[in-house]
Amino acid sequence: MAVTIKDVAKLANVAPSTVSRVIANSSRISERTKERVREAMEELGYHPNFNARSLVNQQTNTLGVIIPSSAKIAFQNPFFPEVIRGITSKAYLEKFGLYLSTGQTENEILEEVRQMVQSRRVDGILLLYSKVDDKVINYLIEEDFPFVLIGRPYEAEAMNVSYVNNDNLKAAKTVTEYLLLLGHENIGFIGGNLDYVVTRDHKEGYQQALKKAGVESKEEYIVYYDEIQEGGQEAVIELMSLKTPPTALVVADDLMALGVLRMLDEMEISVPEEMSVVSFNNVMLSELSSPPLTTVDIHIYELGFQATDCLIKKIHDPKQPTKKIIVPHKFIKRQTCRKRIPEKEISS
Amino acid sequence: MAVTIKDVAKLANVAPSTVSRVIANSSRISERTKERVREAMEELGYHPNFNARSLVNQQTNTLGVIIPSSAKIAFQNPFFPEVIRGITSKAYLEKFGLYLSTGQTENEILEEVRQMVQSRRVDGILLLYSKVDDKVINYLIEEDFPFVLIGRPYEAEAMNVSYVNNDNLKAAKTVTEYLLLLGHENIGFIGGNLDYVVTRDHKEGYQQALKKAGVESKEEYIVYYDEIQEGGQEAVIELMSLKTPPTALVVADDLMALGVLRMLDEMEISVPEEMSVVSFNNVMLSELSSPPLTTVDIHIYELGFQATDCLIKKIHDPKQPTKKIIVPHKFIKRQTCRKRIPEKEISS
Repeated sequence: MAVTIKDVAKLANVAPSTVSRVIANSSRISERTKERVREAMEELGYHPNFNARSLVNQQTNTLGVIIPSSAKIAFQNPFFPEVIRGITSKAYLEKFGLYLSTGQTENEILEEVRQMVQSRRVDGILLLYSKVDDKVINYLIEEDFPFVLIGRPYEAEAMNVSYVNNDNLKAAKTVTEYLLLLGHENIGFIGGNLDYVVTRDHKEGYQQALKKAGVESKEEYIVYYDEIQEGGQEAVIELMSLKTPPTALVVADDLMALGVLRMLDEMEISVPEEMSVVSFNNVMLSELSSPPLTTVDIHIYELGFQATDCLIKKIHDPKQPTKKIIVPHKFIKRQTCRKRIPEKEISS
Repeated sequence: MAVTIKDVAKLANVAPSTVSRVIANSSRISERTKERVREAMEELGYHPNFNARSLVNQQTNTLGVIIPSSAKIAFQNPFFPEVIRGITSKAYLEKFGLYLSTGQTENEILEEVRQMVQSRRVDGILLLYSKVDDKVINYLIEEDFPFVLIGRPYEAEAMNVSYVNNDNLKAAKTVTEYLLLLGHENIGFIGGNLDYVVTRDHKEGYQQALKKAGVESKEEYIVYYDEIQEGGQEAVIELMSLKTPPTALVVADDLMALGVLRMLDEMEISVPEEMSVVSFNNVMLSELSSPPLTTVDIHIYELGFQATDCLIKKIHDPKQPTKKIIVPHKFIKRQTCRKRIPEKEISS
């Protein structure tokens, strides 16, 4: 039943070895012959065995996509599906497939990446996150394997790493300045996992804004939570238990901010009347929350799309220079922030 | 630099051809020799070229995951990331990788599936949705390629298809009966895309409940929207413009229900006082909405996990009988439904 190279050779009136060379896109075959063979392949519905072809032309047309402990955390946050949406769009245009990592711990992921690289399962790798002292990044640099990072490398020495990132420091600085301008001085910071570079950039931006405004940065206002789902809720309990609770919150991401809104609602602290909240990412549901979230659109889709574009270019031309692409962010003012009303003026 | 089969052969003191046979797990090699060769591979850090190994043992240890027009719609709905989370967990345990489809239209996806099958890029396929008259399903049946469907085949003749599904008809019947018991008679139905089998099952369940209660099913109360994001909002406009608008709504999924809540809020129709809302899926954000959604937990993660388990078993043993697995659902009562108050009793 299955169509073979011999059938194609017969129809195209060439030797079977010529068909093999056409599949490998050998420069020894004329364009005219290639066309004839390809037409025969098309006519017979012949698909070269993928693995055989990969062995011949040393290409898999597959990108490895590395997600942090995907099953436990990543796929619960709309950030990752949205970034994969961007990756998918570009990969689709360039006829690349995607190979997803499934490891849960850093060591398991490192082992998967090793397998991908050493057994040539993929042509290049997209890393969807950047950690402080990242073993995977260090390994890929060592192996000189094509990869692009979404985020930025933490270590200054990793100068040769291509990456696509937002200016997270600037974004955090801007939202904090916005809250300061609204009259808030007691501003809480609810960050994500401190191992991630983005968390450190957010915190730095938050502190720079406070410093510039001459407002003291208080340690007890800065909290970190890993669990996006419950983290926001627990953070509110922690911060509202302080002697002087904050009147405004900078929250690591929208999903966490939803948890924050939920807990504030339960405590009957009204947003934005009694508490201002601003977060990051602008995932779809941030618009659907009640009240709709003031947030920073980091163009997640674009991060995925650009990183994929950058990686495929690198695969096609390894001499491409290292690229550092910053996707601009956009402040989205919705309904969770309001001018601070001094205590005595609150009527109720 | 790279370690070769020859190096392994030398260290293990066997012929290079023996190493190849060990890689292919040939029965002609004794377990003792296999162990010695594997130890040598381990010691030297030798990883067989993935594609070469695949050619030899005819296995890719990769599952194809087919998502409906992933870039445009699927990854915006938390259903798909959650189902992939379940798939990832099981694939990880069984040391399978995942290969994601990137096509946008049915024909593009069909072409991708053809490539996967004919070029042996994957060992089996997971279909994350089932459409009426599905070309991909028909093709996979024709090719007798291992696949498992999440959902159920629409055609009765597709008897040999293994699938993992919820009893969506029953779930829709239950929620409609619940609303009827609360005194609602004018119950709207906001369904998803009518091409999907799940939409038809939901509608059937809804209508069976009405019929059983002796309540007339009105055509104008039944609407369908593709776009989950805006669909819920538009559906509310359509239904609230009716001469006798519904007092309760059965909504296809949680994300759509969030759109519904948002629009009702804008129209100052309070939930659950003036409108009851119940939906399906119980994605994480359904708990975070305001008010928290009454919904049906369909155990999305479990759907993915079970389907992957079923597929891998089929790959390992093609003689496995066809399986029809129903993952039980669970009604989750939260705060969006209330007993119908007759018009005249409403004080405000």
